[in-house]
Amino acid sequence: MENLKKKIAKRAKELVKILEISPLEAKKIEENLEFTYTAPKISKKIAANAIDHTILSFNAAEEDVLRICREAAEFGFKAVCINPMWVKTAADFRSKNNAKFLIATVIDFPLGASTAAAKTAESITAALDGADEIDVVINIGLIKSKKLKECFELLKSTTKTKAYIKVILETSALSEDEKIDAALIAVFAGADMLKTSTGVNGKATVDDVKLLRAVAGKRLGVKAAGGIRDKETLVAMMLSGADRIGCSSSVSIMENW
Amino acid sequence: MENLKKKIAKRAKELVKILEISPLEAKKIEENLEFTYTAPKISKKIAANAIDHTILSFNAAEEDVLRICREAAEFGFKAVCINPMWVKTAADFRSKNNAKFLIATVIDFPLGASTAAAKTAESITAALDGADEIDVVINIGLIKSKKLKECFELLKSTTKTKAYIKVILETSALSEDEKIDAALIAVFAGADMLKTSTGVNGKATVDDVKLLRAVAGKRLGVKAAGGIRDKETLVAMMLSGADRIGCSSSVSIMENW
Repeated sequence: MENLKKKIAKRAKELVKILEISPLEAKKIEENLEFTYTAPKISKKIAANAIDHTILSFNAAEEDVLRICREAAEFGFKAVCINPMWVKTAADFRSKNNAKFLIATVIDFPLGASTAAAKTAESITAALDGADEIDVVINIGLIKSKKLKECFELLKSTTKTKAYIKVILETSALSEDEKIDAALIAVFAGADMLKTSTGVNGKATVDDVKLLRAVAGKRLGVKAAGGIRDKETLVAMMLSGADRIGCSSSVSIMENW
Repeated sequence: MENLKKKIAKRAKELVKILEISPLEAKKIEENLEFTYTAPKISKKIAANAIDHTILSFNAAEEDVLRICREAAEFGFKAVCINPMWVKTAADFRSKNNAKFLIATVIDFPLGASTAAAKTAESITAALDGADEIDVVINIGLIKSKKLKECFELLKSTTKTKAYIKVILETSALSEDEKIDAALIAVFAGADMLKTSTGVNGKATVDDVKLLRAVAGKRLGVKAAGGIRDKETLVAMMLSGADRIGCSSSVSIMENW
């Protein structure tokens, strides 16, 4: 881990030049890297309060979204995570039922291959419709093409709303160097939380969560998503540094806790 | 097929009331249904000229998109079909190389679960960046929720550019009644072409191509996409009524023709 942290600190100094931003941003990353994460004792209640209860299927209907909302209220999940066209539906449910969950939606999901204008419009509309949080996919193909400045500028355009911003990196499709670049770009662009995966094209791993927590320090959050279907996996992710879990099997995990 | 055509004509009359549009739109569908499709003799050249040479992977890099463009120019494919952030790249390639292919991109792909504002911004930006054609996914969850007027209004907001509009229905996820509703809504909203599938969440079938051709008549196009990986499948789709083929295996199909 110490070698990885040195690599991240070195790359942060290179990246602030490539992205033409203040060297102070690299200093902040160094401070993040000094932090050692201590996971809380993970009770059922703490786990529930870390879960984004998620339904992102292309064929989810209104009744499915309403079920997710009812379950989030019943089990005390942190948030629901739903597609943009259902944000109003969830906001209506929440206000009618005086429920406490947050509403998260996804932007440029799951491909991370759209334009700044499209990502911005989708983000702003989501915030206007009632989203508290947006999970935006970084433009993975720009990381793969080493177009890092372009990737940074494009991502920045989606972090201007008041919503809490989680940036999805799709770590399982990236090399270690690419993971570091993507995570640093996300932080520099204004991410509030680093998220491993879409769950569609990739899954979370314990090692990726550790890498993201190193970059995030104590300033930012880390969300593990993709392939988390039982208590053991959820706990492993939280112990490694995730303070948020994206999950569709949340009810089954709670019922078998 | 005659029973299916009667069912479509009847549903068109019901839908113009539900969508609050002119009864003349149902008349136009009746005219479409009178048409009997005759496929051309399918030579290698005609097949190439029907293919949208496609790369929509989340991790496609610039070099992959440029390869697709070179292949489209070399084999005489009708179009390239690429993610929105690569439209400018393809437009630059085309103008520098004086190539003839069309540029198609995808909107709200592959989920079909975003908002009107997001779909509109993505469409307009694509057109400004140089897209000739846009393949937009209908909001499948609204079809599943029987929110047909909402689905229609939302789709209409994406058909206002000068681009040629293909509407992706994801037929394999729909019942026969839902396929008819989705196809009619697409036509009423201003589609130029009806497209079976994303290729991510569904595949084309011969029966679905026949259904879409019945609705499309001779006025509109039909694109089969998803799972078309060899000459036999491509020819079967074209004989059933598809005049456009979405395909990632296009070069291998041409080389083995």
